[in-house]
Amino acid sequence: MNKNVAVVLAGCGYLDGSEIYETTLTLLRLDQLKIPFTCFAPDIEQHDVIDHRTEQAMQGETRNVLTESARLARGNIEALDALDPEQFDAIIVPGGFGAAKNLCDFAISGDSITVLPELVEKVRPFFEAKKPIGLMCIAPVMVPKMLSGSVPVTIGDDASIAGAISSMGGLHRSCSVDNIVVDHEHRVVTTPAYLLAENLDEASKGIFKLVDKVAELMR
Amino acid sequence: MNKNVAVVLAGCGYLDGSEIYETTLTLLRLDQLKIPFTCFAPDIEQHDVIDHRTEQAMQGETRNVLTESARLARGNIEALDALDPEQFDAIIVPGGFGAAKNLCDFAISGDSITVLPELVEKVRPFFEAKKPIGLMCIAPVMVPKMLSGSVPVTIGDDASIAGAISSMGGLHRSCSVDNIVVDHEHRVVTTPAYLLAENLDEASKGIFKLVDKVAELMR
Repeated sequence: MNKNVAVVLAGCGYLDGSEIYETTLTLLRLDQLKIPFTCFAPDIEQHDVIDHRTEQAMQGETRNVLTESARLARGNIEALDALDPEQFDAIIVPGGFGAAKNLCDFAISGDSITVLPELVEKVRPFFEAKKPIGLMCIAPVMVPKMLSGSVPVTIGDDASIAGAISSMGGLHRSCSVDNIVVDHEHRVVTTPAYLLAENLDEASKGIFKLVDKVAELMR
Repeated sequence: MNKNVAVVLAGCGYLDGSEIYETTLTLLRLDQLKIPFTCFAPDIEQHDVIDHRTEQAMQGETRNVLTESARLARGNIEALDALDPEQFDAIIVPGGFGAAKNLCDFAISGDSITVLPELVEKVRPFFEAKKPIGLMCIAPVMVPKMLSGSVPVTIGDDASIAGAISSMGGLHRSCSVDNIVVDHEHRVVTTPAYLLAENLDEASKGIFKLVDKVAELMR
């Protein structure tokens, strides 16, 4: 396929970076569909570094979002500021707390969210050109502020997060782990992934559907 | 299935830990087959910490193998010394440089390899009980010293690594990325994975075959 996809990462590990399985399953599906992709991440410090055994912050430790994202991309990554939206046909943002701490501050500020200006600048041209945008897990909370409040999205069935989307002026639709919410008008596709998934098989079903739909909408 | 599998990790990132995609694809396949698993990793310092963008060591930085492996296991991990071989029906070791730096010292010492004694102690009971053992990517280099020189294994088609296996008294058989080498007598299954894979789709083919064969041999 003569199209290619930008994938935006936010670190490496579900508690302080991109969800590793969501990202891997996204890239697996793109490879299976023979769609070329490039990973990007902002060259900024992580909000925090979490010990994934204890779930506690590692005091005094700092890590760079781009450097850690490079682990997840096997080194095939570029700084987010190098992303030229003209060169890509779609953009996908996996979830994990990194999306809610490094790409925006939803995990800290809730519905007073601020989205990383560099991310807004890179994603809006996709939206305006009606190029498909895929967001999974917690990443759809950025939609009302980053894109438009008139785009229905899903984060699964969490009442508190759905309520925050609503109070930001957005639209939330409940969705099961093996399904997607599609706004055909704006070409925005979302899926709950690890906000609902209890294992990789479950996660893969919604994520594969999301990638398949993004691919279909690119044509 | 009333069987379960131990998966041994060595960090998180292909240059200094476990190969992220190999591990994720292994766990995905286990979930698809509805086989329960538990991840384990040694509670030791990593040999080094590599910046996956520059491929250079991050001077002065230290990370713990178990703590970083917990990222890859979403926190569902135990220290390797807690692994009771009696409680598991098979064991799988993904690759990545972590397998060659943290689980053994092949990346440093070549055919003068020393395997982490704790790993030998945990894996040998599987071998002696004829419970299946799956190793991928570079991990099979541990077989001659850890298990037996009479077990044929593959690391793909790299002449230098194959030669090292040979000079350690082992047997190497060339294998394509989408295939596996099976020693039915000793129930050891190996696949080249990212020693040959150029993308996730390719890697998944051999890894899924390895997990399927390990599952079949558990019965």
